[in-house]
Amino acid sequence: MEEDNAAGPSKKALKKAEAKAKKEALKAQRAAERVATQVANVDLEDDPAKDNYGTVTNPTFSTDAEEVELRDLDESYDGKKVVIRAWLQNSRTQSAKMGFVELRKGGNWTIQGLVLATITGTGAESQLPAEGTPVISRRMVKFITSINPESFIAVEAQVKRPIEPVKSCRISTLELHITKAFVLAAAPPVLGMTMAASSQPVANFSDEEPKAEEEVKKEPEAEGGIPAASMLTHLDNIAMHKRAPVQQAIADIRIEVKRLFRSYLEERRFKEFEPPCLIGAASEGGANVFRLAYFGQEAFLAQSPQFYKQFEIAGGRERVFSIGPVFRAENSNTPRHMTEFTGLDLEMEIKHSYTEVIQVLEGVLLHILRGLRERCADEIQIVRSVYPSEDFLLPEPGKEVRLNFAEAQKLLREEGPEEFRNVRDDEDMSTAQEKALGAVVRAKYNTDFYVLDKFPETARPFYAKVDDAGTTVGDNVRVTNAFDFFLRGQEVLSGGQRINDPKELEERIRAKGVDPNSEGIKEYLTTFRQVGVPPHGGGGIGLDRVVAWFLALPSVHLAAFYPRTPKRLLP
Amino acid sequence: MEEDNAAGPSKKALKKAEAKAKKEALKAQRAAERVATQVANVDLEDDPAKDNYGTVTNPTFSTDAEEVELRDLDESYDGKKVVIRAWLQNSRTQSAKMGFVELRKGGNWTIQGLVLATITGTGAESQLPAEGTPVISRRMVKFITSINPESFIAVEAQVKRPIEPVKSCRISTLELHITKAFVLAAAPPVLGMTMAASSQPVANFSDEEPKAEEEVKKEPEAEGGIPAASMLTHLDNIAMHKRAPVQQAIADIRIEVKRLFRSYLEERRFKEFEPPCLIGAASEGGANVFRLAYFGQEAFLAQSPQFYKQFEIAGGRERVFSIGPVFRAENSNTPRHMTEFTGLDLEMEIKHSYTEVIQVLEGVLLHILRGLRERCADEIQIVRSVYPSEDFLLPEPGKEVRLNFAEAQKLLREEGPEEFRNVRDDEDMSTAQEKALGAVVRAKYNTDFYVLDKFPETARPFYAKVDDAGTTVGDNVRVTNAFDFFLRGQEVLSGGQRINDPKELEERIRAKGVDPNSEGIKEYLTTFRQVGVPPHGGGGIGLDRVVAWFLALPSVHLAAFYPRTPKRLLP
Repeated sequence: MEEDNAAGPSKKALKKAEAKAKKEALKAQRAAERVATQVANVDLEDDPAKDNYGTVTNPTFSTDAEEVELRDLDESYDGKKVVIRAWLQNSRTQSAKMGFVELRKGGNWTIQGLVLATITGTGAESQLPAEGTPVISRRMVKFITSINPESFIAVEAQVKRPIEPVKSCRISTLELHITKAFVLAAAPPVLGMTMAASSQPVANFSDEEPKAEEEVKKEPEAEGGIPAASMLTHLDNIAMHKRAPVQQAIADIRIEVKRLFRSYLEERRFKEFEPPCLIGAASEGGANVFRLAYFGQEAFLAQSPQFYKQFEIAGGRERVFSIGPVFRAENSNTPRHMTEFTGLDLEMEIKHSYTEVIQVLEGVLLHILRGLRERCADEIQIVRSVYPSEDFLLPEPGKEVRLNFAEAQKLLREEGPEEFRNVRDDEDMSTAQEKALGAVVRAKYNTDFYVLDKFPETARPFYAKVDDAGTTVGDNVRVTNAFDFFLRGQEVLSGGQRINDPKELEERIRAKGVDPNSEGIKEYLTTFRQVGVPPHGGGGIGLDRVVAWFLALPSVHLAAFYPRTPKRLLP
Repeated sequence: MEEDNAAGPSKKALKKAEAKAKKEALKAQRAAERVATQVANVDLEDDPAKDNYGTVTNPTFSTDAEEVELRDLDESYDGKKVVIRAWLQNSRTQSAKMGFVELRKGGNWTIQGLVLATITGTGAESQLPAEGTPVISRRMVKFITSINPESFIAVEAQVKRPIEPVKSCRISTLELHITKAFVLAAAPPVLGMTMAASSQPVANFSDEEPKAEEEVKKEPEAEGGIPAASMLTHLDNIAMHKRAPVQQAIADIRIEVKRLFRSYLEERRFKEFEPPCLIGAASEGGANVFRLAYFGQEAFLAQSPQFYKQFEIAGGRERVFSIGPVFRAENSNTPRHMTEFTGLDLEMEIKHSYTEVIQVLEGVLLHILRGLRERCADEIQIVRSVYPSEDFLLPEPGKEVRLNFAEAQKLLREEGPEEFRNVRDDEDMSTAQEKALGAVVRAKYNTDFYVLDKFPETARPFYAKVDDAGTTVGDNVRVTNAFDFFLRGQEVLSGGQRINDPKELEERIRAKGVDPNSEGIKEYLTTFRQVGVPPHGGGGIGLDRVVAWFLALPSVHLAAFYPRTPKRLLP
């Protein structure tokens, strides 16, 4: 596959913007440090409200206050006393007597809190409030509004309806009248990346640090004047990266994909299994495999669970799936590549035809794509507010698009861009061809999801079963019972029928120029010779790609919990 | 921890038994080859039944025959015509006219099939049956009864009630009157390990091949005269190993453990996440970590998801779990060790006390253990028929046993074996101590499941939070909010509260003799400094051990799909 680079602002512009952001962060840090020093210098000993605020690890609250999670707060809490643990997201001082805070928890549940001094007057003339009224001093107001953003705090408060809805918060029809506030874990005065920056689209996925000499002059800023950060800055501030609602939403969607994959298959009697990561031979081809020293031997990291899925079928498990990491030692620094990613794999016995496998795979992917639209509508909306995208077009039930590889190439020759006028039916597609085909299929069939079937054997590995009818394409190349699935013109699944007859398998191994007695291959072949293995087929789905292309993210790295790239293994 | 060796027959005896088994296999192979040659020499061309049997890949069946899975066959099929795809497990010839087969599918669903020639007479005097009756020849009977065991076949048959129940089969009240039989994938004439041998307890878990010179003389055989095979033979015959009902049952139980773990946590708002396997620093201690070359850098395989679970908490995910592989480069050749195993991990925010974490972990483990008894009763029975075990004793709800480490050591000194009279409250337990304690606890509290809490800090890693009360044991050693969980006296879970304050964390890192600026550690510490991280704790469960010790298997290797040991990475 070819490397490509997503279009966008120039690298130089992005680096400048980032350098500017860093400069501004430094400025903000100094200002914050000044405030922090002021707060620290205040003597709290003589404050009548001193037990109601501070930095403590085990605060005590009123016995009649109920501990509630933000997401569970609803109108039924109006008037009640609650304890809320949350991140302080923002604060502002209205006056010496009054301050506002914004609290966040559970991804993007936010609420406004306000604190109002109940001790009237200042200095010697100050008076405590009537008994039964919470004691809140101006110093307590100052303390609360000076808490560093992203500190983890616990407040006791009375829940009330605000005069008018607080539009800036997800919980807009309730607010918290704070009577106690404790910092449980303080954030530093200045964040390496603010929540506002973390919630901007990632500016740059390059693995290289911006160079110091590239000084910022005058650069158009991102929306709302908040400079966007590079992926490197995001990774250097992993907690802030994850706290942004957009990343919380992507993580929730990713988990839902796994859940939908699993539930669909379990309902159809598929059984989970766990293929190993450590393997004794680089069985699926040599170049892109990680090697390691293993007690005097050499070990490798599995590039796919292919052989193991087939061993499960040979072992009588009938229909199996696995969800787990796979590894590729590919030095590809593109938005589509990672060195470790998650494979959703399945393998099943075939009764009559390999189209039974297509049926299941098409079924599970449509179940995932439709399920996401139903179950993750909010999360999709959050992601779109940061990374805008067109609606993902799904085929009507019964109108799924399956094209043979040769048909697809013909379509590309006839209706695709000029440069693909001469694509051949017996050669694999490039990434650019795939994307162009995606556009043609979308225009013609109104779907972003489709299947390409009957790939030429030149484009498939040795275990792919050649079409029984002996169909050939191009220069007398046979086609296989093997297919790819696409989302928005990008491949997310490869699958097909596997050879289950040991003689046929050995022949194909030799024809592909592989030694049937080489390590790993020998044991693979042996398994088919040792027992009768039923006809079977399956496929492997790239979880990261499904998430990224469904959401039209600019990089698959945003879909991963901890993207592993050739240049970066931290955190 | 100390290495140990499960008691059992002597190594020498086992090796002899194995060598004998191989010899017998060779003898059987020669006999089978003779039969195979005879069958092959029969000319089928003139057989009026020739379309009803043979070795073909795409057989055709009567249009009124229904394709059924064995497990779905019930009384409602009595009298119906069906097509069954299954493994031929056994066959025998009753007479030249009649044969019996045993078919197996779906783990251990078995049924008897019989085939009766309908062509009367022999040679020139033979007569076809009346029209409408299936045409079955003596040659067809011979073909069917000569199919190599473990071949994958498809039969067409009429379902009937047998004269008396077929006790040897799980489906005992129905049998198949075969009218067509096709071999879809033939097993070889002789299996490397028969189903009978595969269903015996594994004889020997040593990683060394029996030496040729150790010749078999006269050795007591396993039950029923079937020689047991070593784990090496099982792994060399991976498909036969997996086909045995005992391994099918263990696999089903393993999957159920994962399902129970996940469902319990998801109901309590835990979110799944995926920690990476490839990491940039050997952050959790140096010796037992696998290293690999990584594009000019060095990479490591994760020994646990510990840091990443904590990053998720820092990233605002609140409650997380993961299920995935972890790696230990430990050259330990014991029934308790593997180099790759599956961790069930969780981490959660703490509101008031780390006992909230114990509560969840105890809850999830009891949910798993009780769930297995309910949902996997059949599978547990199958495993017990091969590996006998005592009932796993679970505590009554509300009577869970939690002992402090010091209490447990006291118990061991006072009620344990002689050699543990002097165990100390400030030193970690050995495996032998743990097992002895398990026996004491079982006798005293009638449970095989319990918690040891408040481990001394000498026995825990730097991230373990020291008890707030400042409690000390033994030689003035502080205790931690950290605990282990045990099944049948063997540890399956380690957990505790983690330090969330960066200053306290740095201090403990230094106190443990670790450089806070070393790679991996630095980034870990930085995360706590970058943002306010709420109090949190969690634990990690060894899936393989839960399965193995719940079932009282002789080795954790039997619980794994593909056990990885220092000497063995194949298949």
